[in-house]
Amino acid sequence: MKILIVGGNGTLGKKVTERLKEKHEVLVAGRTGGDLRVDITDSNSIKNLFEKTGKLDAIVSTAGAAKWAPFDTMSEDDFYIGIKSKLMGQVNLVRIGRDYLSNGGSITLTTGILGDDPVANTTNAAMVNGAIHGFVKAVSLEIKNDIRVNAVSPGLVEDSKDKFGDYFPGHIPVSMDKMVSGYIKSVEGKVRGQVIRIYG
Amino acid sequence: MKILIVGGNGTLGKKVTERLKEKHEVLVAGRTGGDLRVDITDSNSIKNLFEKTGKLDAIVSTAGAAKWAPFDTMSEDDFYIGIKSKLMGQVNLVRIGRDYLSNGGSITLTTGILGDDPVANTTNAAMVNGAIHGFVKAVSLEIKNDIRVNAVSPGLVEDSKDKFGDYFPGHIPVSMDKMVSGYIKSVEGKVRGQVIRIYG
Repeated sequence: MKILIVGGNGTLGKKVTERLKEKHEVLVAGRTGGDLRVDITDSNSIKNLFEKTGKLDAIVSTAGAAKWAPFDTMSEDDFYIGIKSKLMGQVNLVRIGRDYLSNGGSITLTTGILGDDPVANTTNAAMVNGAIHGFVKAVSLEIKNDIRVNAVSPGLVEDSKDKFGDYFPGHIPVSMDKMVSGYIKSVEGKVRGQVIRIYG
Repeated sequence: MKILIVGGNGTLGKKVTERLKEKHEVLVAGRTGGDLRVDITDSNSIKNLFEKTGKLDAIVSTAGAAKWAPFDTMSEDDFYIGIKSKLMGQVNLVRIGRDYLSNGGSITLTTGILGDDPVANTTNAAMVNGAIHGFVKAVSLEIKNDIRVNAVSPGLVEDSKDKFGDYFPGHIPVSMDKMVSGYIKSVEGKVRGQVIRIYG
């Protein structure tokens, strides 16, 4: 398969990329690194990206940011950070990317455990993850060309434990291998409209 | 209790209002009708609303729109219809409204079954409902003054069956009484951070 991974240089993305490269042709897109540049908050940047990739068999997104801050300090604009990036950035990867996918191709988005099991300061991330969970189920009912759309929702991963573990009291870290398996299930398997939860 | 219901003239809202009025002082706010006017897509309009209500014991929202259209025709702007109205409109009711609530007061938002069990043409509604489900859990971890925040997620209700039933194949309509019970649980009960699912 020819696969585009958006955010392929991030903590999750580089492990997913490593595994996908064992069997597939993989193009890595990132904001600042990789084979191709993309800013997912800008749908024109996404269009330009797909003009460069040409036809694909799978699109994987491990991209998208959200604001991490106490609810008391969150402005309306702060909520739009996650809405424009992790939410609409990924929705636009589906909206635009489907035209570049082969029949039966797949799109795999990334959410995270905070939509189901939030911690303090994560109102924006929890919102955005929950939004993608709803979207994936709905879009799967009607997307054309037999395209499969799924989301992988990882828990706190081992490689983020030292940096972020203190913010996730009592959360059990997920091995990078277990996390990667969620993406393999979506890309190489046949599931559609699933939220693939990879929790500890 | 002194209760503000935003959207209190809608299909759900008028039944909830009727029941709440049996025991409480109820102010109804709506875009075009009710005791007070508000456009929830505009946070200044929300601020003006609360300046008029003064201190409250509970806020109930049965307000908010989303775009209903085939995914193939959905533009980026179409997705922002639900984001600005049903999603951020309701988030802003929490952000702004909490300053007008008494200690231990409650805020009850409205989502709907499409976040869990979508039908065709509902990518925007499914997204927005899922977003509120995540938000309610996260905000409940840290909102001040012991305020309780919940969402009621109704299925297709009896009073919408004739108008919308054909769009919900196989969905079992929920009686208006059962739907109202979700709001009573949130307002008069003690639950917090819950998505109260009222499905057929």
